[in-house]
Amino acid sequence: MDVRALVEAKARAARDAARTLALCPTKIKNDALVLMAGGLVEKTAALLEANRADVERARSRGVARAFLDRLALSEARVEEMAQGLRETAALPDPVGTVVESWRRPNGLEISRVRVPLGVIAFIYESRPNVTADAAGLCVKSGNAVLLRGGSEAIESNTLIAAVLARALEKAGGPAEAIQFVETTDREAVAAMLELDGLLDLVIPRGGEDFVRWVAERSRVPVLKHDKGVVHVFVDATADPVMAAQIAVNAKAQRPGVCNALETLLVHRAIASTFLPLAGRLLADAGVELRGCPATRVLVPAARPATDADWDAEYLDLILAVRVVDDLDAALEHIRRHGTGLAEAIVTGDLGHARRFTREVDAAAVLVNASTRLVDGGQFGMGAEMGISTSRVHARGPVGARELTTTKFVVVGDGQVRD
Amino acid sequence: MDVRALVEAKARAARDAARTLALCPTKIKNDALVLMAGGLVEKTAALLEANRADVERARSRGVARAFLDRLALSEARVEEMAQGLRETAALPDPVGTVVESWRRPNGLEISRVRVPLGVIAFIYESRPNVTADAAGLCVKSGNAVLLRGGSEAIESNTLIAAVLARALEKAGGPAEAIQFVETTDREAVAAMLELDGLLDLVIPRGGEDFVRWVAERSRVPVLKHDKGVVHVFVDATADPVMAAQIAVNAKAQRPGVCNALETLLVHRAIASTFLPLAGRLLADAGVELRGCPATRVLVPAARPATDADWDAEYLDLILAVRVVDDLDAALEHIRRHGTGLAEAIVTGDLGHARRFTREVDAAAVLVNASTRLVDGGQFGMGAEMGISTSRVHARGPVGARELTTTKFVVVGDGQVRD
Repeated sequence: MDVRALVEAKARAARDAARTLALCPTKIKNDALVLMAGGLVEKTAALLEANRADVERARSRGVARAFLDRLALSEARVEEMAQGLRETAALPDPVGTVVESWRRPNGLEISRVRVPLGVIAFIYESRPNVTADAAGLCVKSGNAVLLRGGSEAIESNTLIAAVLARALEKAGGPAEAIQFVETTDREAVAAMLELDGLLDLVIPRGGEDFVRWVAERSRVPVLKHDKGVVHVFVDATADPVMAAQIAVNAKAQRPGVCNALETLLVHRAIASTFLPLAGRLLADAGVELRGCPATRVLVPAARPATDADWDAEYLDLILAVRVVDDLDAALEHIRRHGTGLAEAIVTGDLGHARRFTREVDAAAVLVNASTRLVDGGQFGMGAEMGISTSRVHARGPVGARELTTTKFVVVGDGQVRD
Repeated sequence: MDVRALVEAKARAARDAARTLALCPTKIKNDALVLMAGGLVEKTAALLEANRADVERARSRGVARAFLDRLALSEARVEEMAQGLRETAALPDPVGTVVESWRRPNGLEISRVRVPLGVIAFIYESRPNVTADAAGLCVKSGNAVLLRGGSEAIESNTLIAAVLARALEKAGGPAEAIQFVETTDREAVAAMLELDGLLDLVIPRGGEDFVRWVAERSRVPVLKHDKGVVHVFVDATADPVMAAQIAVNAKAQRPGVCNALETLLVHRAIASTFLPLAGRLLADAGVELRGCPATRVLVPAARPATDADWDAEYLDLILAVRVVDDLDAALEHIRRHGTGLAEAIVTGDLGHARRFTREVDAAAVLVNASTRLVDGGQFGMGAEMGISTSRVHARGPVGARELTTTKFVVVGDGQVRD
């Protein structure tokens, strides 16, 4: 079968299964999630064996150690995957929730009720645990899913998806609702993006160029998980210790992710107090600084920043630092260089906090908190498929609820239109 | 200037103005809407003159009378446009609404706040009043708008848009937030669809083929206002008089719109009671029937339906009628032939009402009410840009609120991630 026919057949099977899954009671979906967890644990030996093949292949191609680390499974990691599924089982079911309801003067009762989107295509990279996380969120939200993982993890992902589908069936749900595209042919992705009659949403996760490539050619609506050039602005009235702790956490707690800090903006009036302190703590955390001239006067160890640094998403222990004249200059810098994911201010000034949260246009704006907190789990929304930088449908962390749409249910007793 | 450069320049101007409009206080936006209404009334003579040119040109091309009627303005119609703008002024401002807010165990306060989408491109056809309605909803929701009306109404639309932009400026808002693409070159639409960095949403309104053409090629997210093959199912336990009144209203009250009834499904057990009555009332309303064999036994005046009738969106005083064996057969017919806009059941059976509303997948499902009620105004949501059949972002009537997105505002006192 050629790759386009294969992808279309899988999408069609998912579409059919989606109708059944959409009407599945909460109990069947939750039972399935628990059985999915149990299935993974039970198959640990086989999963580790499949994963070993992936890791060997990657190693023979000479990939970086960090990459191998993300790819490799262990007993503990399989248990983590299982635990994630159990936690998703414990989340509230978004399907059937009445978002709002009201009565019209003519007696018509109108309510808006959450229903699944239908079929979600999820395109992602190396880490095999993402397969379980994504399938779990889709089952919870009543959506069928067409999974397309990275070619490096093909053996691990194929087996994980098979185990999950079997567990879904065992719980009384439709096994076909979890589809894995087990070809490494890149044309498979292009084919998926043309299936606008069969797929309802595409979520691409990966590098900036890949996400843009998907968004530009997809006929299916896309929820982007995009680049994050994230700023923290340390205002004149910031508590310097709090600001330094936030900067260190936002930069160094996990530098390789989209909500990690990339550029620190510092109000000129606090620079001489704040920057030497922050410079020390950041250096202790292993962070390399690239500063504007005013920064380098106060932190001589900083290398000089170039224009390119203000737009860089390092995803690494590197931080650009710029001293700015005031809040307006900070807002203007963020407007020009921000990517609309997460932006923070550290301030003691209520008026500045209000201006910052109102005027900065991003999925999340924070006052006196680390940008690393922009996350479905940290927000209390449960697991997430990613953080959307799209403006339509869902913006910010994408959890089970964000994988639903709504329908209007209208009940009357013979009302007609005049 | 070539058409692509023209469209891009207008989109860029809209983008710049969008930032200002997004932060405009409610009072300025409402003042602007009232001044827009006043401006149109004041310019009535000039509007009628510009419109006369459009009507003359259309007449000389020999278009249908219904088309001319939709195109033609009168003093009363200008006043109606103005009244629509005043009503939009009176609606609540969606921008700044806190959709939800909660506190995390670590003391973080999280809220989700409505903000404008940014720049909306609206592509529509002949009726000039749509220009005022759409611009009004965009101003209300804080969005800049790039309007592309049909070429037939070019003179009317150009003047209306200019009057509205001037009024927005007079109120203290950015005139550039209302942009009208005053070329009739069709390439302008293609050019708009490529401006994914400048436009945030495209709403196409028009024929099925046009909407599909836009959805397939657009790089900008699309909210579809699609075909409506709308059904009413008359269940065995329906009140026959109520069912007949709903059928007549849904079909004949305004047959040329998307939420008008196209196929009537009748439970076999009630057919002999219901169909002769409904057949009479529908005939009185001037409706031509196309029936299945069982229908034609009871309503001999009905012409025979062919397979094509079950997928027809007549948008005219024609109705397909089919007798079905039971609720399951009705659900299956709707699943195969429905387009997911609006579907209704007339029934006295609570269990059937519950199954119908749960199992039918449409933007709106109705029990004992006319499908013509699926409308922003009838739902109490105010004016609408159309009825979305998209599943993402907004489904059903698209009012001012549906033209917004949200951002997370997170306030803490130094919280970091462990």
